[in-house]
Amino acid sequence: MITDIVELGKRARKAAYQIGQLETERKNGILKAMAEAIVQNSSEILKANQKDLQGAEGLMSNFVDRLTLTEERIKAMAEGLKQVAQLQDPIGNVDKAWVNAAGLRIAKRRVPLGVIGIIYEARPNVTVDAAALCFKSGNAVILRGGKEALRSNLKLAEILRGVLKKNKVDLNAIQIIEDTSHEVAAHFMELTDYLDVLIPRGSARLIKAVVNSAKVPVIETGAGNCHVYVDADSDKKMAADIVVNAKCQRPAVCNSMEKLLLHKEIAAEYLPYIAEKLKAYHVELRGDDKARQILGAEVKLATEEDWYTEYNDYILAIKVVDSIDEAIAHINKYNTKHSETIITNNYQRSQQFLDQIDAAAVYVNASTRFTDGFEYGFGAEIGISTQKLHARGPMGLEELTTTKYVVRGQGQIRK
Amino acid sequence: MITDIVELGKRARKAAYQIGQLETERKNGILKAMAEAIVQNSSEILKANQKDLQGAEGLMSNFVDRLTLTEERIKAMAEGLKQVAQLQDPIGNVDKAWVNAAGLRIAKRRVPLGVIGIIYEARPNVTVDAAALCFKSGNAVILRGGKEALRSNLKLAEILRGVLKKNKVDLNAIQIIEDTSHEVAAHFMELTDYLDVLIPRGSARLIKAVVNSAKVPVIETGAGNCHVYVDADSDKKMAADIVVNAKCQRPAVCNSMEKLLLHKEIAAEYLPYIAEKLKAYHVELRGDDKARQILGAEVKLATEEDWYTEYNDYILAIKVVDSIDEAIAHINKYNTKHSETIITNNYQRSQQFLDQIDAAAVYVNASTRFTDGFEYGFGAEIGISTQKLHARGPMGLEELTTTKYVVRGQGQIRK
Repeated sequence: MITDIVELGKRARKAAYQIGQLETERKNGILKAMAEAIVQNSSEILKANQKDLQGAEGLMSNFVDRLTLTEERIKAMAEGLKQVAQLQDPIGNVDKAWVNAAGLRIAKRRVPLGVIGIIYEARPNVTVDAAALCFKSGNAVILRGGKEALRSNLKLAEILRGVLKKNKVDLNAIQIIEDTSHEVAAHFMELTDYLDVLIPRGSARLIKAVVNSAKVPVIETGAGNCHVYVDADSDKKMAADIVVNAKCQRPAVCNSMEKLLLHKEIAAEYLPYIAEKLKAYHVELRGDDKARQILGAEVKLATEEDWYTEYNDYILAIKVVDSIDEAIAHINKYNTKHSETIITNNYQRSQQFLDQIDAAAVYVNASTRFTDGFEYGFGAEIGISTQKLHARGPMGLEELTTTKYVVRGQGQIRK
Repeated sequence: MITDIVELGKRARKAAYQIGQLETERKNGILKAMAEAIVQNSSEILKANQKDLQGAEGLMSNFVDRLTLTEERIKAMAEGLKQVAQLQDPIGNVDKAWVNAAGLRIAKRRVPLGVIGIIYEARPNVTVDAAALCFKSGNAVILRGGKEALRSNLKLAEILRGVLKKNKVDLNAIQIIEDTSHEVAAHFMELTDYLDVLIPRGSARLIKAVVNSAKVPVIETGAGNCHVYVDADSDKKMAADIVVNAKCQRPAVCNSMEKLLLHKEIAAEYLPYIAEKLKAYHVELRGDDKARQILGAEVKLATEEDWYTEYNDYILAIKVVDSIDEAIAHINKYNTKHSETIITNNYQRSQQFLDQIDAAAVYVNASTRFTDGFEYGFGAEIGISTQKLHARGPMGLEELTTTKYVVRGQGQIRK
């Protein structure tokens, strides 16, 4: 067991210099070989997972479901590796280039971040997914998964590392922290000399804990208290379709809708129509006084806490507003800066909403559910950043890179 | 005295929403009015500065020099404000835009970061400079300067805020922390709900302290242990000119050179020639064994600590290497990821150096002194980032912004 986390960091740093220089074709070949190796060793993976599952007996069914691997899920992991192999490699791309006053040729070139730490819960698929994205973007990765999935994670990492070794690539490009104690995790989050960034993936609780404890720069992902605002001038059916999709298509995810705001002029007409459609999904409605006047007193009164809450469930809180200004002020106060939508046919108000809402993604006449790396066409996603530094919104391969200025001169000195 | 730092944060957040929406022309007009106001009130500024200087009696002359304001320095501040007014406004620029598979029109638009905290030492000019750059990029700023400059800073902020008020702009777009106690500073660095980023400006000690204490995301700036590597195939005069420029033009700044590496084949020929030129500047040389064999035993032996040290002074440590690989490994081990140069006529080795060196800026045949926002043509600089997240290298106005995805649909829902 490696408990010397500094040693782990040193190895990762060393590996990072090697894999940061690998050609795209070589990386793609290795990713495809990893896909094959995962499938070929599926019985071993399932055996390790079985042991993890025995240890998880008695835990919540959701938890056990996420921990469980099957032949099919292993195939999906392999498919994911092949898809990452097909993505465009951002490394070496030049964002911009110019000649300065002294005649220097300056190019801003995409390079790997270096060493990325991922902290996640008991989901073995994250091990493969995160390793693939970090590897393709030329980064070494150190993975710290939940202790309940340790055996599965170690087996998966062993297979991936085996492929690296066979291809004469430093196998420490992918490392797992075997000691899942809190002490080691705390040490890991302070490893500023060897870790360039930490990305927590999982529940709001996990992410908050990492943000609070880490000294290494963190990219915060995931929290989504998303709103839909229905303007006075709007299409009723479009509003209902988008609300139903944003709330019910997959309520547990961060880009699902949690709050509905409606302009007072159309609330009495739209609300019963929308509520009727939500009934089919057994959505629990909560509302402010005006919404309850329309929908009836059986609708629970929404509390101040409701406006802050990300339900991740079939619950929707509704507020009737006097103006778009009130809607925008409410959203900017309570939102988590994730995704917000206006339904409107009015040009000025569409612009006002796009301009004034503070969020990673702002929509006109579309579902909040589109905030996603795959939907945006990135082909992959390591998470959705809700912070403003470095990356905001869906993070694909490019967000796992940084830049360096590459400058060519002919002997210039500074005057 | 406002010691309620949360209140300060709330006011800044409110102001940020207003100034994030200001048109460019309006911001430029205000910046020009600020320039005028600074000059018009120069006698008041000098009076406040005089009180600060009385308090600083007996302190180091460098320190007092940086604290001192004169008519001329006030004019330079005003000039700086006018220059910022002339810079291109990054807000609203679209980095990229595309249509996704569902027909959504997605644009990645530049928006302000929100609220920026600046922590700096007793240099009143930073007050005006940072306020101008944050204002032009649509951000509210909270300034926490050194206590020795408090009266000067308060007077300057009063003048700038007066101009905001006169122009009906929320004057809390620019705020100064009046209570310069450590307790308030500590609280300020943990203000995650109201501060989007903290930028420390000043000594390595200050920056390290902020990085260690802050919970708010920090952009690390400034440390520069910069190297020049002279290849076997290179121009001797160009090498000497660049070394002299990089070391001596302004040794106290972060992009000046601290270490010289030379290939063993040319060391015996080049070193005495370069040393002769450095003599004119009384540069103290330190060297490894091979360098001392060439230059003589009067040259001090460079210790392990030397290779890590940023002298910021007329001191240079010299190492003779067997190969470019040894040079690159040495630089990547000891550097602070700031600026590194190779002097070479060889194509392959120029490429190898540019590819393999891990730094914000990598040069071929040019002085490290060029790593600078003005030299790069950004027209301004809030600092030079030596970290990899968000921004790397010289930071101009664009680095004080983030992006948001602005998405226009026609009723799309997710399948």
